[in-house]
Amino acid sequence: MKEILIKNISIGDELLIGQVVNTNAAWLGEHLSEAGFQLDSILTIGDSENAILNAFDACMDADLVLVTGGLGPTADDITKPTVCKFFDTELEFCQAAYDNLVSLFKRRGFKMSERNRGQAMLPKSCEYVPNTYGTAPCMWLEKNGVAFVFMPGVPFEMKGIFTDELLPRIKERFQAIPYEKRVIMTTGIGESFLVDKIKDWEYALPDFLSLAYLPQYGMVRLRLSGRHEDARLLHETLDREVAKLVDLISEYIFSMQDQPIERTVFELLNSKGMTFASAESCTGGNIAHVITLIPGSSVVFKGTAVTYATPMKTKVLSVPAEMIERCGVVSQEVVETMATGVRNLMEVDFGVATTGVAGPSGGTEENPVGTVWIGVASAKGVVSKRFNFGKDRENVINRATIAAYEMLRQQITD
Amino acid sequence: MKEILIKNISIGDELLIGQVVNTNAAWLGEHLSEAGFQLDSILTIGDSENAILNAFDACMDADLVLVTGGLGPTADDITKPTVCKFFDTELEFCQAAYDNLVSLFKRRGFKMSERNRGQAMLPKSCEYVPNTYGTAPCMWLEKNGVAFVFMPGVPFEMKGIFTDELLPRIKERFQAIPYEKRVIMTTGIGESFLVDKIKDWEYALPDFLSLAYLPQYGMVRLRLSGRHEDARLLHETLDREVAKLVDLISEYIFSMQDQPIERTVFELLNSKGMTFASAESCTGGNIAHVITLIPGSSVVFKGTAVTYATPMKTKVLSVPAEMIERCGVVSQEVVETMATGVRNLMEVDFGVATTGVAGPSGGTEENPVGTVWIGVASAKGVVSKRFNFGKDRENVINRATIAAYEMLRQQITD
Repeated sequence: MKEILIKNISIGDELLIGQVVNTNAAWLGEHLSEAGFQLDSILTIGDSENAILNAFDACMDADLVLVTGGLGPTADDITKPTVCKFFDTELEFCQAAYDNLVSLFKRRGFKMSERNRGQAMLPKSCEYVPNTYGTAPCMWLEKNGVAFVFMPGVPFEMKGIFTDELLPRIKERFQAIPYEKRVIMTTGIGESFLVDKIKDWEYALPDFLSLAYLPQYGMVRLRLSGRHEDARLLHETLDREVAKLVDLISEYIFSMQDQPIERTVFELLNSKGMTFASAESCTGGNIAHVITLIPGSSVVFKGTAVTYATPMKTKVLSVPAEMIERCGVVSQEVVETMATGVRNLMEVDFGVATTGVAGPSGGTEENPVGTVWIGVASAKGVVSKRFNFGKDRENVINRATIAAYEMLRQQITD
Repeated sequence: MKEILIKNISIGDELLIGQVVNTNAAWLGEHLSEAGFQLDSILTIGDSENAILNAFDACMDADLVLVTGGLGPTADDITKPTVCKFFDTELEFCQAAYDNLVSLFKRRGFKMSERNRGQAMLPKSCEYVPNTYGTAPCMWLEKNGVAFVFMPGVPFEMKGIFTDELLPRIKERFQAIPYEKRVIMTTGIGESFLVDKIKDWEYALPDFLSLAYLPQYGMVRLRLSGRHEDARLLHETLDREVAKLVDLISEYIFSMQDQPIERTVFELLNSKGMTFASAESCTGGNIAHVITLIPGSSVVFKGTAVTYATPMKTKVLSVPAEMIERCGVVSQEVVETMATGVRNLMEVDFGVATTGVAGPSGGTEENPVGTVWIGVASAKGVVSKRFNFGKDRENVINRATIAAYEMLRQQITD
């Protein structure tokens, strides 16, 4: 099966001065891969006729050229006339594009400007592809057997059009090679230790499968993916290899879904009809923040006491001042009392607590920057653990948050 | 003055399948701009000899080609031999690169592998540029008057080498055109209304200045920047134009520094020796989270009660159950009582409270999704305001957080 050659041209001065990061190209690369296609290259250029014409010329060896950007109501002035020049055509009024603009403005209750009206002028020889997400048109043109597709640069519009309109057309026109992936979420083990544990398995993988390590704060996502003309063989091989992988590292896997750990905890608690609350010192409310991003999280999450100032640990969470004095605020005794305190205060099944030194200052010999105590209180009692999450403040906060959810998850499933 | 032509080649399969977003190119674009240079184009390709040779050929019209990626201990196998082919040279052992590797491994306490040793083999004709950030070498080569610079793709290494080693060499070798920028942070006004207020001023700006609107949740950063051979003229013109701009929109400006609003609040409170705490319902701890990312924030921030479950508003913040029953949990009465409650509980100068409907469900006719009440209690009493932040949950949380800080800022400066 012949692989088709796909290139992306990203147009926009804002991409060259670093005002905007080109997330569109990465998104296209990912979604093409998952649909069984491969992106060969990405060429990012500014809003100038010369740069655009050179880029078009450089893509004449491709089968399909996906052009993003350069179609807003201002950049329009350069891109569309340049397209006409390259395709040897001229602009003409497109009724379907105009109707789309009218209905869009009507829906939003805005008045249409002359400049917007001009957005309905399209190259004569193009196929108009509807954009229900915004005012920029989407166009499909061909030259010497090369298909050029022009999409707006606004990510939300580009993604919508590509998914709704373009990908189906591309699949119809070109032959894809079946693709499948599996994601395995791990935590509690660093990337290099993970490599050691699974490298023999990885080396023995069939050619058409590949493994990617995607480390994030305190966890490593493993992505096993492959392409094969025989979709069934691909699927079965993935099943088999994932089973082997799970055997090797089962104690570090918190989900076989590509989702953050707080969602796994949310689903677990929700299925059991149980609740939790947090008492946060060094994580500063981040445990609460990440769970409350999930719609409906109020079913399992009842509240948080961020006791950033030490006296508040006594006042709000009933940690005896004497204990803080005796053991220090970053200690096993204090974190366990905080966890129990918030469990009682918020009347929940699980109380999760953190206390530590996020840095960059505040470290001591006994508790250097990065030291974090995490505790989880439940009907079974309290468990706690001491960690060191390094010197970077944001890193400490994020890794402590993930470790707290992992400890909570273990208590729920125990 | 002749502008030099700079191109970037980004090498790496991971960029084409969307596993990694090319933030390096954006960073280079931004930092070249600020140093008075301009990036002409970015070409992203995979780890293959053919793609690399074609990309090199396509850059022979440039003065300077910045190549990122393709130099890790594995990708190495392709890039370096390809470089030798293109520059008609061969690999030889480089003592300086080897010494750098040895000292790096010594510092980290790791053993050097054979593969790492291979990283000291460099093209004969290259100038070796030290990389103190990692194992990949940085190389400078020339062909027919075009300078090719090879940098590692790991962002932290690339940024370090570029800043420490390369930018000084580039400045020495090529002529920059002076660049200067100013950032004005606004909140409480949408982008389109801002455009209306300042468009006459914007149209009258001299050619060499340009304005960028960079909207983020609930605020708009304005960046006025320019390039001019006469640095003093540029500086004075910026001074004059910024002064005019400030006159037009002073009530919306919260900072002339490029920083988030919580940092402005932190600096204000810190300078006055004052403190605050938050009582959060719909923002779910995000007010606490963003301030605690700032090192030293414990001086001004004392704590938070996230009372996600309604009964906790009564238990922790002393909001009468009768009031919640009578006025509803999303109401002026409740938010003001929460603000006062947390001010008393945490013994601070300012209490900030939020209650609202983050969505996507839970909206009513009276309080549709996106409705948020924000209150600030201080020695002068309580102020409160009702907002609607739209339908997207994350957006509601982020915008409510920024609006809360803006209300707090106004109370501090009042």
